[in-house]
Amino acid sequence: MGGGRVIVVGAGFSGLACALALAEAGAEPLVLEARDRVGGRTLSRPLPGGGWLDLGAQWIGPTQDRMYALVAAYGLETFPSPAVGAPTRLLDGRPATGEPAGLAGLLDTLDELAAGVDPVAPWRATGAAEWDRMTLGGWLDATAGDPVTARYAGRLLAGGLLAASPDEVSLLQMLFYLRSGGGAGSLLGMAGGAQQDRIVGGPAALAQRMADALPPGRLRLGAPVEAIAQDAAGVRVRAGDEVHAGDAVVVALAPALAGRVRYDPPLPALRDGLTQRMPMGAALKVHARYPTPFWRADGRSGVATTDTGPLTETVDNSLPGLPGGVLTGFSYGAQARALRRLPDAARRAALCDALVALFGPAAAEPAELIEYDWSADPWTRGCFCGLLTPGSWCDYGPELRAPVGRVHWAGTETATRWSGYLEGAVTAGERAAAEVLD
Amino acid sequence: MGGGRVIVVGAGFSGLACALALAEAGAEPLVLEARDRVGGRTLSRPLPGGGWLDLGAQWIGPTQDRMYALVAAYGLETFPSPAVGAPTRLLDGRPATGEPAGLAGLLDTLDELAAGVDPVAPWRATGAAEWDRMTLGGWLDATAGDPVTARYAGRLLAGGLLAASPDEVSLLQMLFYLRSGGGAGSLLGMAGGAQQDRIVGGPAALAQRMADALPPGRLRLGAPVEAIAQDAAGVRVRAGDEVHAGDAVVVALAPALAGRVRYDPPLPALRDGLTQRMPMGAALKVHARYPTPFWRADGRSGVATTDTGPLTETVDNSLPGLPGGVLTGFSYGAQARALRRLPDAARRAALCDALVALFGPAAAEPAELIEYDWSADPWTRGCFCGLLTPGSWCDYGPELRAPVGRVHWAGTETATRWSGYLEGAVTAGERAAAEVLD
Repeated sequence: MGGGRVIVVGAGFSGLACALALAEAGAEPLVLEARDRVGGRTLSRPLPGGGWLDLGAQWIGPTQDRMYALVAAYGLETFPSPAVGAPTRLLDGRPATGEPAGLAGLLDTLDELAAGVDPVAPWRATGAAEWDRMTLGGWLDATAGDPVTARYAGRLLAGGLLAASPDEVSLLQMLFYLRSGGGAGSLLGMAGGAQQDRIVGGPAALAQRMADALPPGRLRLGAPVEAIAQDAAGVRVRAGDEVHAGDAVVVALAPALAGRVRYDPPLPALRDGLTQRMPMGAALKVHARYPTPFWRADGRSGVATTDTGPLTETVDNSLPGLPGGVLTGFSYGAQARALRRLPDAARRAALCDALVALFGPAAAEPAELIEYDWSADPWTRGCFCGLLTPGSWCDYGPELRAPVGRVHWAGTETATRWSGYLEGAVTAGERAAAEVLD
Repeated sequence: MGGGRVIVVGAGFSGLACALALAEAGAEPLVLEARDRVGGRTLSRPLPGGGWLDLGAQWIGPTQDRMYALVAAYGLETFPSPAVGAPTRLLDGRPATGEPAGLAGLLDTLDELAAGVDPVAPWRATGAAEWDRMTLGGWLDATAGDPVTARYAGRLLAGGLLAASPDEVSLLQMLFYLRSGGGAGSLLGMAGGAQQDRIVGGPAALAQRMADALPPGRLRLGAPVEAIAQDAAGVRVRAGDEVHAGDAVVVALAPALAGRVRYDPPLPALRDGLTQRMPMGAALKVHARYPTPFWRADGRSGVATTDTGPLTETVDNSLPGLPGGVLTGFSYGAQARALRRLPDAARRAALCDALVALFGPAAAEPAELIEYDWSADPWTRGCFCGLLTPGSWCDYGPELRAPVGRVHWAGTETATRWSGYLEGAVTAGERAAAEVLD
């Protein structure tokens, strides 16, 4: 088998899965991670009464086979998202029992269009050029037939799936993502969908076990990679004062961050152009911790969606068997950026107001409000993932996975199934490992 | 006056103008330039029979007062772009004597909309949110009334002014640029417009004289800045093995490149987000050198525009009083990227074919075809300038010039008048110098 010495940049799920696959095949991976921890866009925070909060990615669901396999292989367990009670929905500021008119048909139409998009090469779709040049927001305005439905769908899809505003993503980016994740039902669903299960201890616990399974000495923390040089003899990767030599390198970073590494020779123009055109999404995930899951007494599930206000959706993130309740809210794109412009106290007040609008006065004063700003984290700079800007999929998409000499690309953005998810991160890392071993 | 020691990152026109203004006020600038030359996006190449080619920016025009003043101050001269003969125009593949139907009205409409955009704060315009979410291409399709006019206008405006495709820029980005440059007539014109004059020796000669005017020892070439740290005591700027201390730093790079420097403490989320959302334009500028300016014998000016094929426009770049003729062609956005995907021979054949379509068989075999790929240049990575992606002006625009502690931002992208031009580079550098001196 062999495969030589391979430098892996980044110890998120993609880099870890890549390194494990390389080690298993007899190669010698060395993982360089900028932070003092592994796990990338996953991070757990212990709760005072026991349990934990997932500050980043948290769910897995059906067809994410590698993630379930890893959970089992590393001796962890999953538990289902709570599914008792009725969802809360505010439309145009008023409680609504059903979805807005025409939403189901709109999602069907998107799924039908997405069926024509091969996630391996979205730019080859018959309508690719046209879909790439229009924003999802523009398409919804023209198609939804009702402004409330358009706004609700835009927040649900661009927000809930891409952590963006409908105005900053193309229809083609949306269709790629829908297709990559098995369709709107699969992506949006709790039970039976991408939000079905959580991992005991959080995905961060799994990342730690994956890191622990690497052969000794194969992981350096606190080693931010600054430069990658390659020539006929191999690669040299500089992190701080150390230079590591190898036969190949796998960059398991989002493209926006991969573009900040200095390459010698410089990357080809189009590959570099890709990294200029794939900004990270902007999500604000906030956990409100309460003495009890009070919403359940009202017969509510804690799952809420709304087309107005700073929060687009909430879920019940309370842990089974532990005291207390947790409502987790999500704000996306323009709303998340507007929140970030507020001083701390004003932002926290706005978040509590939004929870009160959904769940009543009992939501007004959580025992604690916990945020983590992935956009401010210099080793992530946004979440959920990188998104190609309107007009860019057709011209730059082919560069996403194309190796540049000895430099290979991993990261969930390069996945063709479940791109943007933990599952995509893992399969992309394993794909890059196979590429190097070839 | 004083102002202390100020590190200026980048010796393009913006960095040089900034450093000169600082020195004049009694501060101590130190300019760090990654390349072994000054001038940024300007570059001259000598011609065998005398004279030169401008491989990058080349024109100045009325109201670009600082540029004319610098030319005079540094003992250089300008000469007018040639203005003899008739323009060549291909519409839908056929020669046309006039502009496409409705073009003038379309430009008027854009200028009227642009009048409502304050280039200091485009996000405050009444229609800003709406204009930011739609692409120029989408607006033209809906407004032009004729597909040929829409395509021609899209190439002329998104291409000729922004070096992009109409599908990848927002209407708001276009309106900002139109307003910043004094309107469509001012921006598109030769005599009386932005393409009126050239500089003897090229702008690169002016940049060299500006650099020579810096106090001794105030410029380091071959010093690519990798990291900028700041605290209460000052700034420390690392370039290779050297660390330079100062009281403040002015980053005179395009935002996409400024985002590749490592900052300590890390930049605020929204400022970093800006650098993720302002990719460089994509232009291919090609000079075809011929024994004579043969097109003049046909009564043609050498200025050509077309709505089809890889080249959007050409000009006569022959030098007065020197033998030989030069046709300079421009390809933008998707067309430029498609050309870049071709092998060298195929690309050069496609370029010659495009010149033949415009100027006949005499254009088929230039003595030399000279390209310079700014997108492949690691210290530029595209041209003419950085452009905010659709949906980004409203949320990220306010970060363009806002200093972050001791870190200030220059570069033509930060200009409010003639943004994207040499004039904007100079005034932005001088504005940043004033900011630091304050």
